[in-house]
Amino acid sequence: MPQTIPPGGDVLVICEHPAGPPPRPERLTPVIGAVRAAVRGCLAGLLADRATGGADGRNVPDALVALSGGADSLALAAAASFEAHNAGLRVGAVVVDHGLQDGSAAVAERAAHRARDLGLAPVLIIRVVVGSNRGPEADARDARYAALDRAREVTGARVILLGHTLDDQAETMLLGLARGSGSASLAGMSPASGPYRRPLLGVRRADTAQFCADSGWEPWQDPHNDDLRYTRVRVRQTVLPVLEAELGPGIAVALARTADQLREDAEAFDEMIEEFIEEIVAPAEAGIRVSVAALEHNPAALRQRIIRFVVLAEFGVSLSRTHTLAVAALVTHWRGQKAVDLPGIRVVRDAGWLVFSATPPT
Amino acid sequence: MPQTIPPGGDVLVICEHPAGPPPRPERLTPVIGAVRAAVRGCLAGLLADRATGGADGRNVPDALVALSGGADSLALAAAASFEAHNAGLRVGAVVVDHGLQDGSAAVAERAAHRARDLGLAPVLIIRVVVGSNRGPEADARDARYAALDRAREVTGARVILLGHTLDDQAETMLLGLARGSGSASLAGMSPASGPYRRPLLGVRRADTAQFCADSGWEPWQDPHNDDLRYTRVRVRQTVLPVLEAELGPGIAVALARTADQLREDAEAFDEMIEEFIEEIVAPAEAGIRVSVAALEHNPAALRQRIIRFVVLAEFGVSLSRTHTLAVAALVTHWRGQKAVDLPGIRVVRDAGWLVFSATPPT
Repeated sequence: MPQTIPPGGDVLVICEHPAGPPPRPERLTPVIGAVRAAVRGCLAGLLADRATGGADGRNVPDALVALSGGADSLALAAAASFEAHNAGLRVGAVVVDHGLQDGSAAVAERAAHRARDLGLAPVLIIRVVVGSNRGPEADARDARYAALDRAREVTGARVILLGHTLDDQAETMLLGLARGSGSASLAGMSPASGPYRRPLLGVRRADTAQFCADSGWEPWQDPHNDDLRYTRVRVRQTVLPVLEAELGPGIAVALARTADQLREDAEAFDEMIEEFIEEIVAPAEAGIRVSVAALEHNPAALRQRIIRFVVLAEFGVSLSRTHTLAVAALVTHWRGQKAVDLPGIRVVRDAGWLVFSATPPT
Repeated sequence: MPQTIPPGGDVLVICEHPAGPPPRPERLTPVIGAVRAAVRGCLAGLLADRATGGADGRNVPDALVALSGGADSLALAAAASFEAHNAGLRVGAVVVDHGLQDGSAAVAERAAHRARDLGLAPVLIIRVVVGSNRGPEADARDARYAALDRAREVTGARVILLGHTLDDQAETMLLGLARGSGSASLAGMSPASGPYRRPLLGVRRADTAQFCADSGWEPWQDPHNDDLRYTRVRVRQTVLPVLEAELGPGIAVALARTADQLREDAEAFDEMIEEFIEEIVAPAEAGIRVSVAALEHNPAALRQRIIRFVVLAEFGVSLSRTHTLAVAALVTHWRGQKAVDLPGIRVVRDAGWLVFSATPPT
């Protein structure tokens, strides 16, 4: 009865109390060691936060691994269990059953039991209903992140560990490139954003598969990963192999490294704008105004980001580059021109200010 | 006798004096109009500079079109001739004979005569010897740009117009991505850098071919453009078509737009560093030192660029991201660690400074 699933998903707790340490002795191969090291660095950050006043209730987990049962999240779960036990942290797992495939409940349950066997606790299964609003990939993602939020609420966990690898990062960056919306969309995924941590962003996908092989596990193969209707699947199966063949085998690493640098760039611009935005804006009738002098004296990259920032904050509208440049021209190519009309917003230059105001819908 | 060609190339002047206006009546099709408009914008900038004191000697050209005889540069030459005549500017052409293919001298001569027939003057052919230092693509480029510089010297032309299109820009960006060296290498080609102008960066390559077809010309087909040993050719013939097929037909435009934005970003960071670099550095024994406080208080993107800037300026070394982060860790993860040793450079933290000094070669 999907209709009976509440918003955020139906929660099923497989394992409430600590299920003890991970099974020993465990194998240590070079790949298992490398994945553990990546997870260790991430958990060390959690431990530091905890020492300075984080949640430390007896049954409250420090982190939950988002587990699909695929190789990436399975390797993450195993490494997290091992490292958490060594560090004295409590790590559980959450399995999201998207209900999109026959037998998805059984897949979820198998993953959950694997998590319990790995010594993770608590282990939750959250059954969700995927909407049909923004396309199949985005809808599944929306439902998944809502369920992960729900899992944090239910358990009190501070963070969710996600199994995204270096290859996922490279794919994300290529998808951003295709959108052409500039450095913000090229910055890829952050190792830490809000309650999410991605310890495997420096680990190759092939290494998570090797981790499972070294451990004697057969990870779940998501049939969606072979469905060429999904852009991301085509990037993975067609685009990246062609790039590797024609440009050299280092392309995924190069893309991921570039994403890191572009994310830093975007963060630097965000910080700068945050520092001075209050000094250069003032309220206006039905909107907001921005000092022309401030826009003039900043380099183009900042000027355009200020314009985008102001319009997003005031009107909830994300301006295209073309629209942004049309507004910027009131500063950079001023020759007394009239208003710039954007959808729902009018911009005029008046007495040293760019005045942004809402226009009535036509 | 290639040995007799002097450094910078052997100059042959085909047409010294003005060859009169372009042949009329000329066709005007939508594509011809669009290419002319793009060139007009660029020439307007030249005219503005000239009015405020640029070169205006009677026989000194305002610009030279770098002409290969291929569709891109041929469309550029024709549009530049038309627009220059309307604007009262003097535009010539320079053809570089790379001497890499049989019959290259005849190809160059045909292009030069086409330029003369288009009303361009002066028209030069410069015969060069391509070295074998950095790989065939880079060597040909080095020789070409040296010849273009030579042409400016000989004629006194202020700028060289280059026929790079939006598709060239997209290819350049993909090649930069493959190197993974961050936003600097993704920024692509600038519409104006030094004496070079690229008026066609917003024009599709297919449109320059259409321009030639509309004009009844058969442009030269460079056999190098089909030689799959060149990475750029593989990007053009294999990589971009796959990206278009899998990610959507707008990919080249998206890549070029992203390059524009990333170039602005890079310029903004350069400006910022230029503004404050003198305040945060001081000389040191066998090197230079940088204020730890300044590095600490800037966001990561700027901190790492300052480190790269200082090392490049002081030692002529371009640091990799890994090396840059190793130096930055002396600021961001300081726990009394010892020197960071890079090839030829030692970095230590000492009394509020990062001290960079040359180390003797081992």
